[in-house]
Amino acid sequence: MISDRKLEHLLICKQYDVQYKNKKTGFEDIELIHRALPEINKDKIDISTDVFGKKLNSPLIITAITGGHPLAKQINRELAIAAETEKIGLGLGSQRAGIENPELKDTYSVARENAPSTILLGNIGAPQIVGNNSEDFAQQAVDMIDADILAIHLNTLQESIQPEGDIDAKGYLNGINEITENMEVPVMVKETGTGISADDGILLEKAGIDFLDVAGAGGTSWAAVETYRAEDRYLGELFWDWGIPTAVSTAELINSVNIPIVSSGGIRNGLDAAKAIALGSDSVGIALPMLKNAFIGSNEIINFIKRFNESLKIAMFLVGASNLEELKNSNLIIKGETKEWLEERGFNTKKYTRRI
Amino acid sequence: MISDRKLEHLLICKQYDVQYKNKKTGFEDIELIHRALPEINKDKIDISTDVFGKKLNSPLIITAITGGHPLAKQINRELAIAAETEKIGLGLGSQRAGIENPELKDTYSVARENAPSTILLGNIGAPQIVGNNSEDFAQQAVDMIDADILAIHLNTLQESIQPEGDIDAKGYLNGINEITENMEVPVMVKETGTGISADDGILLEKAGIDFLDVAGAGGTSWAAVETYRAEDRYLGELFWDWGIPTAVSTAELINSVNIPIVSSGGIRNGLDAAKAIALGSDSVGIALPMLKNAFIGSNEIINFIKRFNESLKIAMFLVGASNLEELKNSNLIIKGETKEWLEERGFNTKKYTRRI
Amino acid sequence: MISDRKLEHLLICKQYDVQYKNKKTGFEDIELIHRALPEINKDKIDISTDVFGKKLNSPLIITAITGGHPLAKQINRELAIAAETEKIGLGLGSQRAGIENPELKDTYSVARENAPSTILLGNIGAPQIVGNNSEDFAQQAVDMIDADILAIHLNTLQESIQPEGDIDAKGYLNGINEITENMEVPVMVKETGTGISADDGILLEKAGIDFLDVAGAGGTSWAAVETYRAEDRYLGELFWDWGIPTAVSTAELINSVNIPIVSSGGIRNGLDAAKAIALGSDSVGIALPMLKNAFIGSNEIINFIKRFNESLKIAMFLVGASNLEELKNSNLIIKGETKEWLEERGFNTKKYTRRI
Amino acid sequence: MISDRKLEHLLICKQYDVQYKNKKTGFEDIELIHRALPEINKDKIDISTDVFGKKLNSPLIITAITGGHPLAKQINRELAIAAETEKIGLGLGSQRAGIENPELKDTYSVARENAPSTILLGNIGAPQIVGNNSEDFAQQAVDMIDADILAIHLNTLQESIQPEGDIDAKGYLNGINEITENMEVPVMVKETGTGISADDGILLEKAGIDFLDVAGAGGTSWAAVETYRAEDRYLGELFWDWGIPTAVSTAELINSVNIPIVSSGGIRNGLDAAKAIALGSDSVGIALPMLKNAFIGSNEIINFIKRFNESLKIAMFLVGASNLEELKNSNLIIKGETKEWLEERGFNTKKYTRRI
Ligand SMILES: Cc1cc2nc3c(=O)[nH]c(=O)nc-3n(C[C@H](O)[C@H](O)[C@H](O)COP(=O)(O)O)c2cc1C
Ligand SMILES: Cc1cc2nc3c(=O)[nH]c(=O)nc-3n(C[C@H](O)[C@H](O)[C@H](O)COP(=O)(O)O)c2cc1C
Ligand SMILES: Cc1cc2nc3c(=O)[nH]c(=O)nc-3n(C[C@H](O)[C@H](O)[C@H](O)COP(=O)(O)O)c2cc1C
Ligand SMILES: Cc1cc2nc3c(=O)[nH]c(=O)nc-3n(C[C@H](O)[C@H](O)[C@H](O)COP(=O)(O)O)c2cc1C
Repeated sequence: MISDRKLEHLLICKQYDVQYKNKKTGFEDIELIHRALPEINKDKIDISTDVFGKKLNSPLIITAITGGHPLAKQINRELAIAAETEKIGLGLGSQRAGIENPELKDTYSVARENAPSTILLGNIGAPQIVGNNSEDFAQQAVDMIDADILAIHLNTLQESIQPEGDIDAKGYLNGINEITENMEVPVMVKETGTGISADDGILLEKAGIDFLDVAGAGGTSWAAVETYRAEDRYLGELFWDWGIPTAVSTAELINSVNIPIVSSGGIRNGLDAAKAIALGSDSVGIALPMLKNAFIGSNEIINFIKRFNESLKIAMFLVGASNLEELKNSNLIIKGETKEWLEERGFNTKKYTRRI
Repeated sequence: MISDRKLEHLLICKQYDVQYKNKKTGFEDIELIHRALPEINKDKIDISTDVFGKKLNSPLIITAITGGHPLAKQINRELAIAAETEKIGLGLGSQRAGIENPELKDTYSVARENAPSTILLGNIGAPQIVGNNSEDFAQQAVDMIDADILAIHLNTLQESIQPEGDIDAKGYLNGINEITENMEVPVMVKETGTGISADDGILLEKAGIDFLDVAGAGGTSWAAVETYRAEDRYLGELFWDWGIPTAVSTAELINSVNIPIVSSGGIRNGLDAAKAIALGSDSVGIALPMLKNAFIGSNEIINFIKRFNESLKIAMFLVGASNLEELKNSNLIIKGETKEWLEERGFNTKKYTRRI
Repeated sequence: MISDRKLEHLLICKQYDVQYKNKKTGFEDIELIHRALPEINKDKIDISTDVFGKKLNSPLIITAITGGHPLAKQINRELAIAAETEKIGLGLGSQRAGIENPELKDTYSVARENAPSTILLGNIGAPQIVGNNSEDFAQQAVDMIDADILAIHLNTLQESIQPEGDIDAKGYLNGINEITENMEVPVMVKETGTGISADDGILLEKAGIDFLDVAGAGGTSWAAVETYRAEDRYLGELFWDWGIPTAVSTAELINSVNIPIVSSGGIRNGLDAAKAIALGSDSVGIALPMLKNAFIGSNEIINFIKRFNESLKIAMFLVGASNLEELKNSNLIIKGETKEWLEERGFNTKKYTRRI
Repeated sequence: MISDRKLEHLLICKQYDVQYKNKKTGFEDIELIHRALPEINKDKIDISTDVFGKKLNSPLIITAITGGHPLAKQINRELAIAAETEKIGLGLGSQRAGIENPELKDTYSVARENAPSTILLGNIGAPQIVGNNSEDFAQQAVDMIDADILAIHLNTLQESIQPEGDIDAKGYLNGINEITENMEVPVMVKETGTGISADDGILLEKAGIDFLDVAGAGGTSWAAVETYRAEDRYLGELFWDWGIPTAVSTAELINSVNIPIVSSGGIRNGLDAAKAIALGSDSVGIALPMLKNAFIGSNEIINFIKRFNESLKIAMFLVGASNLEELKNSNLIIKGETKEWLEERGFNTKKYTRRI
C-alpha cells in the first residue's frame, strides 16, 4: 500500500539519521568573500522574489514532502500555514496516492485550504507520465490543489533500492516533453536527492521544462531512508552516498541551461542559500528540516523560516548585496573537492572569484 | 612443504586482517556520474559477457585462491559449485603442488568436476615457466582441470617477504613469451595484489599474452599474509602497503594496451566493479571475500554473487547503461590521490568526464 | 549601555574560547624557507621599524581592545605601561563611549598618561563617521589620547550578530574619504577579525587612507563573542567562522595596494609575524593574547612581547634576514587552502618562492 | 661545559621523543612504482658503493652523533664495531671538545681503533671555521681519527634555541671556502636536521665542497632536543617543526648541484633509502636509531643495518634495480605536500615518473 509506505517514510525521517554520511553538499567548499565595506543598509535588504508571476517573501521553497496518509494531512496543514504566513513556496508530496484513491485527496488539498495565496507545487513521479493517460494524470494533480507549478520528480535511486520500485525509466524524457507541451501551468522537473548533471539539464531544457530543482546529494539520502525499511540493508548502505553533490549540480546547471534553478538537497540555512544563489540559482529548496519542524507545529516552521531569512540577510549584508540579483553577482571561491569535480567536468570556477 | 604453507595461507586469511592498511584501491576517488534520466529499464540490463568464446552471466571472476591441501579441495568444491550455478569464472590457485605431487591433483580437479561448463582458469607461477620444461609444466596445469585459460601469476612481493621465496625473476618475460607461443588456450598474466604498471603491461602485450589481470593494491596484501607467518614481522610490516592501487593500475593499462583487462585487488561489490568497468576493464576479479564465504559454503558464495550482480545492475541503471559496453562509456570523475597519481604518470583523467 | 557591553566583552574574552573553530589564519600553510647559511649575526638583527615618523622597537601593535568602563581603564593602563616599556604601538578600543560620556574619558587617556612617548592609535567605528559631525567626532577621539594615528574600524559581522548592532553601512567609504581629507594625523582603516579583500583595499586606498590593518579571520571571532552574549545562539554559531583568513587577506592587500599593511587576526608569536612580514606587511597586530595577559599585569604583557621579539629574531636568523626589509624579501612557500584561495582569486603564489 | 651538554643530549635522545611532530620527511608522499616484471635476481642485487675511493657494503652512513664524554666513548665504540663489521660509513660527533680538551680525544679515536678500514667522517661546526686557526682546527679533527672525510656541520636552529648558542653565522661560507682549498681529505657540509635549500646548495658547491648531507626535517629535531633542556620551553616548542623536509631538500639539491648527496634526516629503513636514492642521492644517513641501538650494543646496530640492507634490496628487487645506479633511474611519483612544495619552488616532479 502506498499509504503505509508514506507513513513509514515520515516516521523514519523523524527518528533516524537519513542524511548523507561521507558525501557533503559541497557548500562547505564554497566561501563567500567578505566585504568589509558593504555600502548597504541591512534593514533595506530585499530578499523577495518573483516566481512565475507570484511574489515570494523569500527565495525559499519547501520542497515536496508528503501526502496520502492521515498523518501526511496533518503535516501538510502545518507546512501550509507556515508557507502562507511567511509567503514562501510549498511543494506537495507525490500525488499519485490521491489520484488513485480519491479518499486521500484531502491529505493534499488541505494545503491549498491553508495556503490560499502562496505558490503551491503539485508533484507527480516520472513513472506516472509514461504512457497514455499522463496528461490527464498531471492535470488531476494540478487541479487537486490548484497548483501554480507542476513538479515531476526523478527518483531512480529510491526506486532501485526499494523492493516495490518502479525501475523502468524508459520514456521519461518523452513523457516530460508531452506534459510541457500540454500543461497550462509551468512545469518543473526535480530530483529527490541525487542531483542532475549538466548533460541531463540540457536534455530537460530541450524537453521544454520551465524550472529545474537540482535536489542534489548531501542532504536527505533516499537510499538511507530505504535502508531502514529494508530487510536486507546491503544495497541501501552501499548506495547511501550515491549522487552529485548539490553545489556541483547547481554549478553545472547554472552554467549549462537558461531556465531558473532551485538549488536544494542539504540546504539548511540562509548561509547555504546565499552560496547557492551566488552560484546562480534563483531560489533554494528545503525538505527534511521542514518536516522535522512540522511534527512540532507551524510555529516551529515559521521560526525556522525567520531564522533562514535572517541568516540569508546577514550573508547578503556581509557581501554587500542588497537584493538577490546583486547576490548573484557576488564574489565567491570554490575550493577542495567541489573545485576538483567542476574542473574535471570542464567548468571554470575562477569566473566567480572576482566579478565585482 | 608447499601443502602446509597453503593451509597456513587459508587460515591466516580467514582469521586475520590481511588487507592494505593505509593504501586504498583508488575507487573511493572515483565517482560515477548520476544520470537523473537513465532512459533504460533496469529489468532489461544485461550484465552477461563473453570471455574467449564462453558466456558468463556476470563480468566476474573468482581469482586464483587455492589448491594443494585437503582443506583447499573443500574450498575449491564450494567455489566451483557457486561459479557453475551463477555462471561466472573461477581461477584455481597455483597448481605447482598438484604437478609436483600427483596425490594433490584432486584438490584442483574437484573444481572441474563441480563446474563442468563455466570458465576455469589454471594457474602457475612465473618462476615455474623459466627454464626447459615450462611448456610441459603449463600443459599439465591446463590438463589437470581442463582449463579454458591459463593464468601465470607474478608474485615478487610475496616471494621477497617469505623466507622460502623464489627471488630470481630473470627470464619471466621470455618464459611468458614461450608459453604464449605454444599454448592452445589463451594465456593470462596476473599480479597477486601489487598491480601492473603501463610499462609492464606493454611488455606483456608484446610477449603475446591474451588477457591481463591487474590484481592491484588495496585489497589482500601478500606482505600482510606473510607478516603473520614470519618470525620477524619487520619486513612484512614495512612492505604491507607496497604497490600500485587497483584503480591506478587499471587506468594505466586500459590506456596503454589493447587486450582485455580484468580489474581486481580490493574489488568488493558491484559498485566497485561498475567503476572498474567504466574505466575500461572487461571484467573484475575477487578473491578474499570469496574465500571467506567459501568457509561457510557455496550458498554463501552464491548469495554474495547475487548481491554483486544486483549492485552492479543498480549502478548501471543509475548511469543509464543497459549493458557493459554502455557502462564502458559512462561518465566518471577521478579525484584526489588517484587523479594525482595518474596525472603525474602522464594519463589524462578528463577524457572520462564528459563522454556522453 | 555601551559601558556594560564593554565589560561583557572583556569578561567573555577572558573566560571563553572566542577564536575561530574550523577556519585558520592560513599561516599554517606558509613555510619560511630555512637558510642553512644565514651569513648574519643574530645579535645584530634589527627589528625596529618606523611608523609615520616614530620609531618602534618591534613591528608590533597591540590592536584596539578596550575603553569605556572602569575595568577597561585598568586594562589600558597595563597595556600602556607595557607598550611604553617595550616601545611598541598601542591601539585603544572604540572611543565612542568616551566621546558620548565625558566621565569615561579617563578610561582611554590613562593610556597616554602611561605611554607618553610611544605610538597610540585612536579608534572610532565606521558608523560614527557617517553624517555631519564626523570630523569633529574623529578629532575628539584624537585629542582624547593625543593619538598618533586614528583608526577607523569596520565591524559588520559583529554589528549583524548583536541585537543592538548598527547595520546601516551606507556611506562608510564617503565618510572615510572626508576624514582622510581633514585629519592631520594619519588615518588607518582596520577590520576587526573578518579581513579585507583586495577589492575593498583598493577602494580604501583611493579614499586616501594612510594605513591598513587587515584584521583577518583565524583569531578572535566577533561572531563567537556575540554568541556568548546572545539569548539565541543560532546566528552567532552559523557565522562563527565567516571571513577572509588573515594570510589570504594580507597577501591580497600586499599585492593590490601601496600603503603600509598591518597583518593581524590570529597572530600569536614572532614566527607568525615573520611569515606575515615576509608576505609583505610592515607590522603585525595582536589583541586577544594581549588582553589575557593584561588581566594579570603589565609584566606579563612585557614578557609576552619579549618572547614575541625573540621568536621573530630567531625566524629572521634562520632565514638570514638582518632587518625587516630583508625579511620582506625572504623566500617562502604557500601551500594548501591558502594557495588554493589565492590562486582562485588570481594572485600568483610562486613569486614568493625563489626571490633570493 | 661542553662535556655535560653532550651527556644531556645523549640521555634526552634516549628517553624522550625528539622527532618532528607535525612535519614529516616527505618520503610518505613518494611512491616507488612496482615492477611486476623486475627481470633481475634478488640474490645478485649489489648495494655496494664507492665513496671517495673506499668501498662501502651499503650506501649507508651513520651520521655524526657524539664524542667528548665517557659515555660518548662507549657509544662510539659500539658504532665503530658495527660500522667496521658491516662496512658502512661512520660520522663522529663534533670534535671541538676533543680539540679543546685533549683528555677527551680518546672518546673519538676509539672509533678508528675499532673501525680501522671503513670510512670515518670527522666533524667540526661551522662556528669553528670562522677566523684564523680554522685550518689548523680542521686538520686536528682529521688527524684525531685519521678521517677519510671532514664534515662541517651547520646548526643554526639548535644554536638559536640553546642558551649557550653560537649565533654569529657571518663568514661561514668564506670559512668553508678556505677549508676546501686547504684540506687534503674531501670536505662535506652537513645540516643537522633542518635541511639545505637549492640556493644554499649552489653556494656550497661554488665554495668547493665535495659532498653534501641534506640532514633535512622529519627525523630528529634539534629544537625538540633543546626544549627538554630548556627552563622555558616556549621557543623550543615554537620551532620544533622548523625546516625543509628531507625529501624536498634532497630533490632540490639533486636538481641543482653536481656533487654527491647524502640524504638524511628521518631516514629509518631501506625503503626510505630506496626512495631517497631514486630521487638521486648517492647514499643515506641515519643518526637517532643508530644511537638508540648503540645503547644496547654493537650487535643491535648490526642487526639494524642488516634489516636496512635487506629492506633496501627488497625495494630494489620490486622496482627491478640490480644496483644503485639502476635504482637512481627507477620510476617514482611524488604526491601531496611534497609535490606542492617542489612545484612552488620551480622543480619538475614529472621527470621522475616515467624514466624507463
Ligand atoms: C519524507 C520525505 C518525503 C519526500 N517525498 C517526496 C515526493 O513525494 N516527491 C518529491 O519530488 N520529493 C520528495 N522528497 C524529496 C525532497 O523534496 C527533497 O528533494 C530531498 O529530501 C532533498 O532535500 P533535503 O536534503 O532538504 O531533504 C521527499 C523528502 C522527504 C524527506
Ligand atoms: C588465500 C589466497 C591465496 C591466493 N593464492 C593465489 C595463487 O595461488 N595464485 C594467484 O595467482 N593468486 C593467488 N592469490 C591472489 C588473488 O588471486 C588476488 O589477486 C589477490 O588476493 C587480490 O584480490 P582480493 O583483494 O580480491 O583478494 C591468492 C589470494 C588469497 C587470498
Ligand atoms: C575584547 C576585544 C575588544 C575589541 N574592541 C575593538 C574595538 O573597540 N575597536 C576595534 O577596532 N577593534 C576591536 N577589537 C578587535 C581587535 O582589534 C582585533 O582586530 C581582533 O581581535 C583580531 O585580532 P586577534 O585575533 O589578535 O584578537 C577588539 C578585540 C577584543 C578581543
Ligand atoms: C644525539 C645526537 C647528537 C648529534 N650530534 C651531532 C654533531 O655533533 N654533529 C653533527 O653534524 N650532527 C649531529 N647530530 C645530527 C645528526 O647527524 C643528524 O643530522 C640528525 O640527527 C638527523 O638525522 P636523524 O633523523 O637520522 O637523527 C646529532 C644527532 C643526535 C641524535
